[in-house]
Amino acid sequence: MTDKVRAAVMNGPGNIRVAEFPYPKVAPGSALVRMEMSGICGTDKHMFKGETVHPGGQESAFPIIPGHENVGIIEELGEDAKSLEVEGRALRVGDRVVPICDVTCGQCYVCRTSFGLTTSCERDVGYGTTLSCKDPPHLFGGWAEYMYILPHAMLAKVPDGVPAQAAVMTEVMSVPFCGFNKAMSPFPLGKEGFAPGDRVVILGAGPLGICHAILAKMCGAEEVIVVGAPKYRLDLAKSICADYVLNIDELRDPAERLDEIRTLTDNRGADLVAECAGVPEAVSQGLDMLRVGGTLIVAGNYIDMGPTPINPQKQILSKNARIIGVNGQTAASYAGALRLIKRHLRQIPIDKMVTHRFRIEEAETALKTGISMSSMEVVIIPK
Amino acid sequence: MTDKVRAAVMNGPGNIRVAEFPYPKVAPGSALVRMEMSGICGTDKHMFKGETVHPGGQESAFPIIPGHENVGIIEELGEDAKSLEVEGRALRVGDRVVPICDVTCGQCYVCRTSFGLTTSCERDVGYGTTLSCKDPPHLFGGWAEYMYILPHAMLAKVPDGVPAQAAVMTEVMSVPFCGFNKAMSPFPLGKEGFAPGDRVVILGAGPLGICHAILAKMCGAEEVIVVGAPKYRLDLAKSICADYVLNIDELRDPAERLDEIRTLTDNRGADLVAECAGVPEAVSQGLDMLRVGGTLIVAGNYIDMGPTPINPQKQILSKNARIIGVNGQTAASYAGALRLIKRHLRQIPIDKMVTHRFRIEEAETALKTGISMSSMEVVIIPK
Amino acid sequence: MTDKVRAAVMNGPGNIRVAEFPYPKVAPGSALVRMEMSGICGTDKHMFKGETVHPGGQESAFPIIPGHENVGIIEELGEDAKSLEVEGRALRVGDRVVPICDVTCGQCYVCRTSFGLTTSCERDVGYGTTLSCKDPPHLFGGWAEYMYILPHAMLAKVPDGVPAQAAVMTEVMSVPFCGFNKAMSPFPLGKEGFAPGDRVVILGAGPLGICHAILAKMCGAEEVIVVGAPKYRLDLAKSICADYVLNIDELRDPAERLDEIRTLTDNRGADLVAECAGVPEAVSQGLDMLRVGGTLIVAGNYIDMGPTPINPQKQILSKNARIIGVNGQTAASYAGALRLIKRHLRQIPIDKMVTHRFRIEEAETALKTGISMSSMEVVIIPK
Amino acid sequence: MTDKVRAAVMNGPGNIRVAEFPYPKVAPGSALVRMEMSGICGTDKHMFKGETVHPGGQESAFPIIPGHENVGIIEELGEDAKSLEVEGRALRVGDRVVPICDVTCGQCYVCRTSFGLTTSCERDVGYGTTLSCKDPPHLFGGWAEYMYILPHAMLAKVPDGVPAQAAVMTEVMSVPFCGFNKAMSPFPLGKEGFAPGDRVVILGAGPLGICHAILAKMCGAEEVIVVGAPKYRLDLAKSICADYVLNIDELRDPAERLDEIRTLTDNRGADLVAECAGVPEAVSQGLDMLRVGGTLIVAGNYIDMGPTPINPQKQILSKNARIIGVNGQTAASYAGALRLIKRHLRQIPIDKMVTHRFRIEEAETALKTGISMSSMEVVIIPK
Repeated sequence: MTDKVRAAVMNGPGNIRVAEFPYPKVAPGSALVRMEMSGICGTDKHMFKGETVHPGGQESAFPIIPGHENVGIIEELGEDAKSLEVEGRALRVGDRVVPICDVTCGQCYVCRTSFGLTTSCERDVGYGTTLSCKDPPHLFGGWAEYMYILPHAMLAKVPDGVPAQAAVMTEVMSVPFCGFNKAMSPFPLGKEGFAPGDRVVILGAGPLGICHAILAKMCGAEEVIVVGAPKYRLDLAKSICADYVLNIDELRDPAERLDEIRTLTDNRGADLVAECAGVPEAVSQGLDMLRVGGTLIVAGNYIDMGPTPINPQKQILSKNARIIGVNGQTAASYAGALRLIKRHLRQIPIDKMVTHRFRIEEAETALKTGISMSSMEVVIIPK
Repeated sequence: MTDKVRAAVMNGPGNIRVAEFPYPKVAPGSALVRMEMSGICGTDKHMFKGETVHPGGQESAFPIIPGHENVGIIEELGEDAKSLEVEGRALRVGDRVVPICDVTCGQCYVCRTSFGLTTSCERDVGYGTTLSCKDPPHLFGGWAEYMYILPHAMLAKVPDGVPAQAAVMTEVMSVPFCGFNKAMSPFPLGKEGFAPGDRVVILGAGPLGICHAILAKMCGAEEVIVVGAPKYRLDLAKSICADYVLNIDELRDPAERLDEIRTLTDNRGADLVAECAGVPEAVSQGLDMLRVGGTLIVAGNYIDMGPTPINPQKQILSKNARIIGVNGQTAASYAGALRLIKRHLRQIPIDKMVTHRFRIEEAETALKTGISMSSMEVVIIPK
Repeated sequence: MTDKVRAAVMNGPGNIRVAEFPYPKVAPGSALVRMEMSGICGTDKHMFKGETVHPGGQESAFPIIPGHENVGIIEELGEDAKSLEVEGRALRVGDRVVPICDVTCGQCYVCRTSFGLTTSCERDVGYGTTLSCKDPPHLFGGWAEYMYILPHAMLAKVPDGVPAQAAVMTEVMSVPFCGFNKAMSPFPLGKEGFAPGDRVVILGAGPLGICHAILAKMCGAEEVIVVGAPKYRLDLAKSICADYVLNIDELRDPAERLDEIRTLTDNRGADLVAECAGVPEAVSQGLDMLRVGGTLIVAGNYIDMGPTPINPQKQILSKNARIIGVNGQTAASYAGALRLIKRHLRQIPIDKMVTHRFRIEEAETALKTGISMSSMEVVIIPK
Repeated sequence: MTDKVRAAVMNGPGNIRVAEFPYPKVAPGSALVRMEMSGICGTDKHMFKGETVHPGGQESAFPIIPGHENVGIIEELGEDAKSLEVEGRALRVGDRVVPICDVTCGQCYVCRTSFGLTTSCERDVGYGTTLSCKDPPHLFGGWAEYMYILPHAMLAKVPDGVPAQAAVMTEVMSVPFCGFNKAMSPFPLGKEGFAPGDRVVILGAGPLGICHAILAKMCGAEEVIVVGAPKYRLDLAKSICADYVLNIDELRDPAERLDEIRTLTDNRGADLVAECAGVPEAVSQGLDMLRVGGTLIVAGNYIDMGPTPINPQKQILSKNARIIGVNGQTAASYAGALRLIKRHLRQIPIDKMVTHRFRIEEAETALKTGISMSSMEVVIIPK
């Protein structure tokens, strides 16, 4: 045990450095997690570049210890902290866990009626993004040796046999887990929404996009087509889960990509398109790729990057289209994502997503490597 | 019985006049309906003004006998025409019926898998819009003394006790019937989609808008707010079904309207907004009026009027919004709409929707009265 | 303010008498409600008759202060008790409220994943049924001058304009609110599950049955048929909401009732049947009354009354039937039920359900009046 | 080409022999399929044993050419027969196809409103079961050299790369395809109905049971447990798709099996149980195996084998259970099942299901081999 806890602190856009905090005393109902690994998310890159408006208009709460895609080992459990597990399972010191990255109030209109859509809680704060590290116990992000779990936060127990390098993808995987569940056809026999056997297009070849491609495959999609760049990422996508990839560095004109998609889908368009690109135009391009009666998931435009023109008649009404905004995930979906990761570990090597590892001291290099796009999931490992 | 059948024929935008056609011989599997009443739809007004691109890119098939909101009496039933009824009920000469306005192939991918979403059939043609009257038996629209029912067309039997003036609203009512059904929450306890007790905003105060308001009330909406103009229409809406109306001639700034909506919804936004205005901007304004987790129906942008800017992060993702395009209706929904009209006839006087009646010879005046907006539902009555 | 609080205590089957408890000190996060009215539920009658096995195998926790259909006025609010409102609204002393009758843990597998299906919580206890009054602060039932609200219990604020005599029906109404929501068609255009315009049969003419009939009507059912006895209850049902009633004292043979139902439903059977009779045979009779593709809600068999023979081929598979067990309600459904009660107060006089009022001292007479069936909702009023 | 067509004809229970029919002339809108393979279904075995009451009370229409699990090659296409394909695709002589085994009217209440639930059509007849071979063109079953496709029948085109021995499972696979789709959670985040990651129990180890197990795995089930006998079938199940098997020849007491299921499901019970055993008691045993909030599919009780006692309180209400009757399948589900078969051909060797092959002349031996249970899918191959 140590006196001091090292962490990477982002003090503002472009400014990240190592700091030390006191090793905390664990209060009742709380826990301390010894970090194994913490991913770099698109949001982290946005914040570093100064794009700081989160959903609901919340601002990044600098100074921040970044890191909300986490996995670690329970080091200490406060008194009465057994209820922290997201499905009510017993917890013990030494358990591998994925912390749920949002802390919700449990009492507002959304919490009471929307069943754990954590990021929409009226008083939601997020580890590593909108929860500042300036006040004790400080350790509210994963790019650190330890993370402090507040009484209303939750932990998802990692099933036996799932290594840290797969578990670190849980938070990202829980987004498509929720998105596909919301898109699931209410009456799949009627070809509304997603159903096993469908053809799926993913726009965006970063970690969020590939996790959507993985989930589509896990849920029985017939065909998964990833549209993005660069070649490095698309090659990795193919080796993990994609049936087809379209490189936008080569097919630069959206009309060419649309032609390809139509060719790959009996000239009908995709049953489901998931926007994971984070740029507004992708929404319009995705609508064009849908078949009549298809569904578009909007999951990538997490940071406000402005408006884009949409034609309501051609792109929505004429198509009987459904568009579903997915702002984050439920707490319970972490457990669901972990079950799927375990189930498919042999067929779908999700651990290959982690392409680069850095130490806390290398956080800035890690961020730049993530931004370079010659990487997929970049992680911080304390030691 | 007559030799000649009089009808109003639209030969192109701005050009409508009376013509006579031979009284047809009714082929096996077909029927002839003696018209009681035929409404003027927004689409008719658009065609008259030269806005002629229907969903799927189809063009108006001039010359046309307009009229797809119809009610009449079966005059003749061809041999073997018993199967024409939309729910498989027996038909007899003298029955009051509402003809389904689309003729679908029953055999394409959409017909086979999408359960009667008539307007999306790959070979769909529409009475009064994309089915020309230039070839025999000509009578393919309701602004005429008789209408000819083709073998693949269908008829919805009007329940006893529903007068023609209420039944003439069936086709319009079947659109919100489908829209609300599609928007119905797959798990209403979770406050996704529409559920009884919800607060509903309707954008647009024409017949489509008021029919959406009526359906919302029939399905148990707590509060129905109609946003539109002019005062004449809003007053009528209030007398039929609206709890609140917002006059856009007075509240000219969308921000003012948004403020009003928030005040009327505990500062939360509407559970459901139905776009029935036919202008692209209404989609964006409707998204702003939604609560987190709310649903937007896009039903009014039936004719292509161009694109509008949408912010994917603020207006879709942040809100966990759902957007549902509603291109027309199923055939079975005519029967459903008729059941609801009958059930609520005493509480919701839908027959008051018909504010103006004209004869076939007066079709041009009728159209202009409809366009004037000092009217609600304008109908053509043969004699 | 008084020193002592009077309450009716059921010490075991057949044994109910008045007792006095000390006026409690209200702890942080808790509240005290001054009772206006408390209903007698079927469960109370069962317990009095010695039928004491609740769902999940829980036993009645004698001694009990009965009363879980409650309405009252907030007398005291403990520190930090603002979060007690079920939709996160602010609470004040003097507000009229309906207490949620179950106290759930919020942390077990069911609470974390099933979104507030209160009665299925692994550690659920119920005011007036499985929460004993033997330990302080004792006041855990509604047949008393005051009721004590524990920190994890919740309160639903009664909207302005809803009198106590209507609000007292909230707990019962929240059961069909959940049941119909669960039965709601996932794709109503496909005629699966309940949709507006449907024909509904209710088996059982007690308060639970009539509340289901009321909810069916509020949700737009075309026809509501109540099957039960005696004439007293059926007459009341007609005066409140039923379109048809079948008296099982007259139509003693289930086959006769089935014939009547078929006659009333175009020989097709009901779209939805709700079992609210509390006897096992009703499940089988209800299945017979369904149309092909119909839905059966099982809501009345709340107390274990043994098995009944079911033919899986004829009654389930052949019919493509759906059967939905409804064990109680969610907390949020109280708020939904109250919104619907308010919305329909003028058309559906739910306050007429309360036919008999008794004082705490008359609890035994009140129970016997409830059991007699020459009553509908019997309530206890403190003074 | 031949003059005569050989077929196996079942003249009544226990009586099957070879007969010859004239080679038919193919009428407009019709087709002729040269049989490659035709399976023996549980229904065929029932008919042979004299258990002849099909869903809806229909009787087997002896004399019959059995065989409704078919695959073959288009030999002739009548004029205008292009619309026979179930998803509207073009057909050509030489295409491999699976005929849809039911012929529906397309015009009754069920056909118009229930979207192709073929077996519930009010005038449905089934190839090989309720469509007699006594009238020309006779060839209405698959245990023959050729099968005649009527104008309202349909054909599902087999995708390239799917061999006949996999395609012959399409009809069986389309049942769980529909069943799982109906059971799919309307809001999977709420743990209602089936969702990827769920734990599934299959009761029955015959072809229907194993096809349900296969589909569960294709849809992302975490764990698939097959309960049945004998060891021969369970071993095959394990080699194809089952994670666990319980042998009822060894665990003879249902209570023991229940204990095992609870052990395998964290003591919670299964998320979904599919009854594919064809015996009434399996329904009751399946309900006991469900977790709170679980779903039971009833797909095996296709022939009426009498009633079974069910406790509505313990087995339905207390559990918030859902029970879903699945009477056959939609036509479109054949295409869906084929897509899934193709997609998973490498991971899930469905062709291993076919364990025994017989010629038309050996139909009686084939039936007895099927009944023996020392086989899985037994097929008839013309030559």
